[in-house]
Amino acid sequence: MDEERSRYKDEMIRRKARQDAAVAARKIEEKGLLIVYTGPGKGKSTAAFGLMMRAMGQGWKVGIVQFIKGTWDTGEKRAFARFADLLTWRTMGEGFTWETQDRDRDIAAARAGWQAALELMNDPEMRLVVLDELNVALRYDQLPTDEVVAALQSRRPSLHVVVTGRNANPDLMAAADLVTEMSATKHPFAAGVKAQAGIEF
Amino acid sequence: MDEERSRYKDEMIRRKARQDAAVAARKIEEKGLLIVYTGPGKGKSTAAFGLMMRAMGQGWKVGIVQFIKGTWDTGEKRAFARFADLLTWRTMGEGFTWETQDRDRDIAAARAGWQAALELMNDPEMRLVVLDELNVALRYDQLPTDEVVAALQSRRPSLHVVVTGRNANPDLMAAADLVTEMSATKHPFAAGVKAQAGIEF
Repeated sequence: MDEERSRYKDEMIRRKARQDAAVAARKIEEKGLLIVYTGPGKGKSTAAFGLMMRAMGQGWKVGIVQFIKGTWDTGEKRAFARFADLLTWRTMGEGFTWETQDRDRDIAAARAGWQAALELMNDPEMRLVVLDELNVALRYDQLPTDEVVAALQSRRPSLHVVVTGRNANPDLMAAADLVTEMSATKHPFAAGVKAQAGIEF
Repeated sequence: MDEERSRYKDEMIRRKARQDAAVAARKIEEKGLLIVYTGPGKGKSTAAFGLMMRAMGQGWKVGIVQFIKGTWDTGEKRAFARFADLLTWRTMGEGFTWETQDRDRDIAAARAGWQAALELMNDPEMRLVVLDELNVALRYDQLPTDEVVAALQSRRPSLHVVVTGRNANPDLMAAADLVTEMSATKHPFAAGVKAQAGIEF
């Protein structure tokens, strides 16, 4: 047992040493990150909400634009009402495209959303801006990808931006500092469980 | 242009019809989900925090046990202070194992965490319980996997449970309703950017 503990301890010390060496070998800097949450799995917008929560816990001013979702009175929205001192929330989407079935209206909503995004990103007090479902607006060509990526790249260096939604554009992923792909290893809708308040919205 | 719009609209209608048919073909039920966020990518605990936020926005009572993380005064913890009416937060971890380097202490902390988890899960007022980094405690054999999975499976049917952490146990994933694997398509540490307040903690 003592031998086992000793081996365990040695392994933990070796692991820590390797980690320290790897970190020391790199140039370390602090900068605003461009974060992309994409993929078919659940948790993309949810992770963005968690980041907003964390950032507001640090006292940061945070902004969010919802590009595609409609104006539902969702759980997160009511929860974020407790952060009215720190949070600016803009919902520009008209609902998913297969609900509106009107491309001109979708494009107008996406443009209004992008305008709101630019305003938030240009606000010097904002430290984190979330562009929820922007990937979907780009995917359906509701916004010019090159213009969007250029604006994200030329943002103020200290500003963190999170972009969510399936099918992230390759140019956007190339410009990003952090890309997490959420893959749906198991999805409850496939097992016949419906979307539920508190969990899905 | 009119033709393009018409094609677009037709495609959206077809898509909606397929979706409706797929949903109608299934048995739909409402039940508490066992959700697992795993994989090497960033966003696992963050997505769990987002879910807690959403659930509390619906007025639910929510509990969380942190199995591995230490007692840092993190952003999320300060943010969650605004939900003292709905949230029970237990931090049992002694920090990551390669920091404590004491297997007996790690095991004692994990057992205390699991005890807290059982108490939260047995509280009839709780509607969502998050077991943050439980996967790591299981991975290092700090808790008996069969006992943990059995307790999760025999929970009250309406209770949602979220388990986070890398390297989720296969038996746990088999028991889960929803598994999202976060893969690290791009990670900022690899590019020499250090962990930053507001984003990482």
